[in-house]
Formats: sequence, structure tokens, C-alpha cells
Amino acid sequence: MDYEAFYRGRPVMITGGAGFIGSNLAHRLVQLGANVLLVDSLIPDYGGNLFNIRDIEDRVRMNIADVRQESTMSYLVRHVDVIFNLAGQVSHIDSMRDPYTDLEINCRSQLSILEACRRNNPGIKVVFAGTRQVYGKPEFLPVTEQHLVRPTDVNGINKVAGEYYHLVYNHVFNVRACSLRLTNIYGPRQLVKHNRQGFIGWFIRLAVEGRELQIYGDGSQLRDFVFVDDAADAFLRAGASDACNGEVFNVGGSEPVSHRDLVQLLLEVAGTGSARCVEWPAEKKAIDIGSFYADSAKFRAATGWQPRVGLREGLARTVAYYREHLPHYLEPGDPGAAPAS
Amino acid sequence: MDYEAFYRGRPVMITGGAGFIGSNLAHRLVQLGANVLLVDSLIPDYGGNLFNIRDIEDRVRMNIADVRQESTMSYLVRHVDVIFNLAGQVSHIDSMRDPYTDLEINCRSQLSILEACRRNNPGIKVVFAGTRQVYGKPEFLPVTEQHLVRPTDVNGINKVAGEYYHLVYNHVFNVRACSLRLTNIYGPRQLVKHNRQGFIGWFIRLAVEGRELQIYGDGSQLRDFVFVDDAADAFLRAGASDACNGEVFNVGGSEPVSHRDLVQLLLEVAGTGSARCVEWPAEKKAIDIGSFYADSAKFRAATGWQPRVGLREGLARTVAYYREHLPHYLEPGDPGAAPAS
Repeated sequence: MDYEAFYRGRPVMITGGAGFIGSNLAHRLVQLGANVLLVDSLIPDYGGNLFNIRDIEDRVRMNIADVRQESTMSYLVRHVDVIFNLAGQVSHIDSMRDPYTDLEINCRSQLSILEACRRNNPGIKVVFAGTRQVYGKPEFLPVTEQHLVRPTDVNGINKVAGEYYHLVYNHVFNVRACSLRLTNIYGPRQLVKHNRQGFIGWFIRLAVEGRELQIYGDGSQLRDFVFVDDAADAFLRAGASDACNGEVFNVGGSEPVSHRDLVQLLLEVAGTGSARCVEWPAEKKAIDIGSFYADSAKFRAATGWQPRVGLREGLARTVAYYREHLPHYLEPGDPGAAPAS
Repeated sequence: MDYEAFYRGRPVMITGGAGFIGSNLAHRLVQLGANVLLVDSLIPDYGGNLFNIRDIEDRVRMNIADVRQESTMSYLVRHVDVIFNLAGQVSHIDSMRDPYTDLEINCRSQLSILEACRRNNPGIKVVFAGTRQVYGKPEFLPVTEQHLVRPTDVNGINKVAGEYYHLVYNHVFNVRACSLRLTNIYGPRQLVKHNRQGFIGWFIRLAVEGRELQIYGDGSQLRDFVFVDDAADAFLRAGASDACNGEVFNVGGSEPVSHRDLVQLLLEVAGTGSARCVEWPAEKKAIDIGSFYADSAKFRAATGWQPRVGLREGLARTVAYYREHLPHYLEPGDPGAAPAS
């Protein structure tokens, strides 16, 4: 069956459903006619934002809950066929300041979800949002799934433990599961209210606001970027494919770009903002990994996925989104923020 | 400096100090003149046993505490130079029945210890007891540290997360730490009161009791075995060597042996017991990994360690120990158990 047709009328759950990737995936699933349940804790500092789902709020069910809460998850998993498991704490910096909270959100919560599936709905399928962070500083490029896992921060460790749980529950308890190790995802609906969740959203905000972007070092380090619609498409394909069960897959961009070139392109597309190279802050340098880009051939072979939105187009769509909606993505105390709804 | 001389008068802590490897290491450290603090929770089902340290109880300090307890660990780490970090839940089977407890003991507790060091004694050195389990089912033999980490059960996942924390705290916070990935350790003072902590201790008990040993399948799968005195020596060398910081090392036996040959040798050495091949129980088969043996060349190159006690001699010493002391290693309700002390 065509992977898009697979979702027509199908009950699915997205954890982290009001977040960046979760809400974009929800829009696509609504278009495909799925029966969508969003679960989000709306913890203030994280990426969940009800504005992200205002267009589709009448066509989804929104359940505010924390995935760490075992009894809630036990109930919610009963009537869905697929879980897109995107809830998590994604700040490297926060994980080094408060490793216990990161442990709770990225490890314990995954056990809650998987135990709920094992005991109440073992026929379910779970697609986990993994991360390139698990590889740490690469030994070779592009990075394949054969690269050693060597995380450089607590968040990377807890994310990989969460991923491994999925694989073990697949192998031992037949709860079908796989993990997509995402590289740098960008696009509309990303958290930009602080700069502790990766640099790309923050850079886009600064450009839109006409401010200065700081490039650490000489900006020569390489990264690959995936537009969020392409990331959502990867989740849809993985959720519909039993060829993915028990496996991990890189989901990365079509070609690497240096920080410097990324910033140049972004400023050109935006027409506002400026850039300057600065020294590495010590705290960030300690957990930096140099250049990174992923080889996604394994996932392409399994599902036919490939990124369709080029960097220039993706940046243009993202800049246009924040030009229109930025006030909804600022802290309530920020002078430019939208009034609370 | 000679690694043994390094410990003269030196304050050291062993977590899991009343357990199998911890107590054997404590005996050696006492001989070397170290100032030894043992920390153990003495949780009934685990390996801590005060009988293990009766010979040295006047020459060590014993502090009963749970390594998950943050304030306790914050206090205890202040005045020691080296932590041998051996506390943990080691049953694969239990971890699949109750993954949350395994998470607490093998992940959260490691964060407690490392946060305590980071905040109160960053000049400390920590040697973590890792495990070959992290490799899962091997892709090649012997297994080197370049083999992918792919645990097959929840315990293996949590143990590797605990190990990764040590490496990150070494790299980011300069809390010097390394991990020894131990294969199958055997010898005096091992838990034998139930069979959920690996088969070798259990087999030795059955042989000593003159009972029947069950070999799963045809017994052709290979393993490597390390006598506990050699494992203790590995910890001493790693604790004294800054060449080990930030690294993981396999610590395995000198040559692989099949289950069948191991049992034959054990029965010959013991002169009691019998053996029979039986079908694999489904629960165990689901998490079995086939043959496994490790390449320890990296650790040998870094520290000069090599195993000195051969399998026949090690088994003979272990059998002699349990012939004399078995009642102290049985459940209180067991007819052969020693009276509670």
C-alpha cells in the first residue's frame, strides 16, 4: 500500500504533538485523513506551542499530558495504531546543568511509553525521534549507522538510551519500533524564544529581526539540514513500513553546508540581519563536535525517502513564516510577544 | 610509580563494596595499605553480603547507603582520591520485568555519583564497572572496543548510559573517569543464592551441591572468563593510570571456552554434580547473544594487565571457597543457609 493512503482513517498519536516537528507532522496527517491524537506537556521552556496547531485544532484531539506519567500513557496508547514519539528535552546545554530532568524526560518517559504499549497494545508501531548527537564527534564523514555511538553530552546519552529501549522492545516484546536519527531540522513552528535548542532556529529569528548573527570560530564546520516537511515525510514513511522495524536510520540533508555559507544564504534570503565571527564560548566549545553530515542511504533504500525541499527554498519559507508569526514564538515577557491566548 | 605502591595510604571508595568484585578488590586494597571506604546498600536480592568482608571488617570503613541518594554521595566523595564504581543491578532478567528500578540503579545513581564528584571533588578519579553486555550479539569475534554498542536488554542499555556519563564527565567537567567492560567474572564471594545474575556462579553452586547443571542447547556457544582476582587487578591498574582517562576497555579472559567444555572442566574439578543439555527457555533465548569473547589488547597496552589465573585453577579455588562457605551465600529461608549474623 502507498504510505500516504496507509494513514487514511488511521488512529495515530504524536507525543510532543504541539512541538516543532510534531505539529508539522500533524498538519500532514490531517491532510491525509488520519485520526490524530496529539499529546504534549506544554512545559514552558520546551517547544510545545498551541499556536503551532491553531489551523488544525478542530481536526485533531489535543491531550495535555506528560509522557513520564505512566497511568496516562497506559490509557492513551490503547486505541492508536502508530505512535510518532517526538516528546523530549532537546537542549544540550540544559542537560549539562540539570542532568536528572533530562534523564526523566528522555529515559524514563520512553520506558513509560514502551511499557504502556507492551502491556496494553503490543500490536502498535512506534517511530522514535532519535538524533545525530548520539554519534558525537565523527570519526569519518559522511556518518553512517555503522559509526560508533559516542555522545558528548548528557542529552545525547539519554536520547540514545531512549532509542535503544525501542529496539529492545521491538526485539524482545515484538512492539514494532524504529528510530530516525535526525540531523539539523529547520522550518516553520520551531522554538526560537531562546537559543538553547540548536543554532538554526535562533539564527533565523535574528535575521528576521534584523540583528547580528554570531558565527563561532571561522564558520568552516559543515552541517546538513533537513526542512521540516521532509522530516515529517520521513516519519510517515517509517510508520507505514515494517521493513524499518528494529532498525535505526540516519535522516539527513542532501549535501553539507558550512556555517558560514548557511549564514550568507540566510541573510541573502531574508534581506535583513548581519553576521560576525566570534571566539568560541568555552561552555559550547567543550561539547562541540566539528563538522558533521550524515549518510541517509539506508533509509532511502528502505523507504524511498529523500529530501525534496532545497536549502534556499526552505529558508525562504521559514523566514516568511516568522515574518508573519514571530510574536507567537517569543517569551510572554518579550516586548514583541503576542498577547497570551 | 608502581601501581600497587600508588595505593599505600591512599583514601579510596568502593561502591558495591560488599558485593562480589567490590569485596575481592577491598581485600587487595587492604593488603596494599589503602584507606578503604566501602559503600553498599545491602539490598536483599543483590550481591552485597557482609560475610564477604568479615576478614577485613576491622581494616575498612563500611557505610551502608544507596548510591541513588544524592546528599549521601555528595558527602562521601569529598575525602577520597579514587572511586571504584561497582554498585549496580546486574540481572538481565530482572531488568526486563522491572525496567524502572533498573533505570534508577544503573542510570540515576551514576549521575548522583558523578554530580557529587563534579561539585565536591572534581580532582577525583572514577573507575566504572562496565559490561560486555553493551555489545549485544557480536558481529565479529573477538570483540574489540570498535564494535558497535547494541544492547539486547534494558540492563545493557542502562549500563551503557551509566558508562557514557562517566566519559562525558571526564571530557566536559574533567572528572577523570574510565570504564572497564567486564566479560564473565567468577570466583569466591559471588552471589549464588539465585540464578538471575549469570550462569557461572550458579553452575559452581550446583556442582558443589552435587546437583544437575542444565546446558541450554548444545552448549557450543563460546565465552571468556576472568577470575575475580584478575578483575580486581584490572581495577587497580585503571585507578592508578591517567592513560586510561576518558576511555573504555574490554577486560576479558585469555581464551574462549564453550559452555560444554566449561561444565566438563567444572565437574572434573569439583568431583561432584552432573550435566544435561536441555532446550532453551523462550525468555532466555530472546535475549541470548550466541558466542562472545573479547579482545583485551587495548587495556593490556595501556596498563600491562593480563589475566594470571587459569580457568582450572580459578574454578578449583572457587569450588574450595564454596565448599567451606556456601551456607553464607544461601537465602535465609534455604535449609542449608547459615544463621543470620
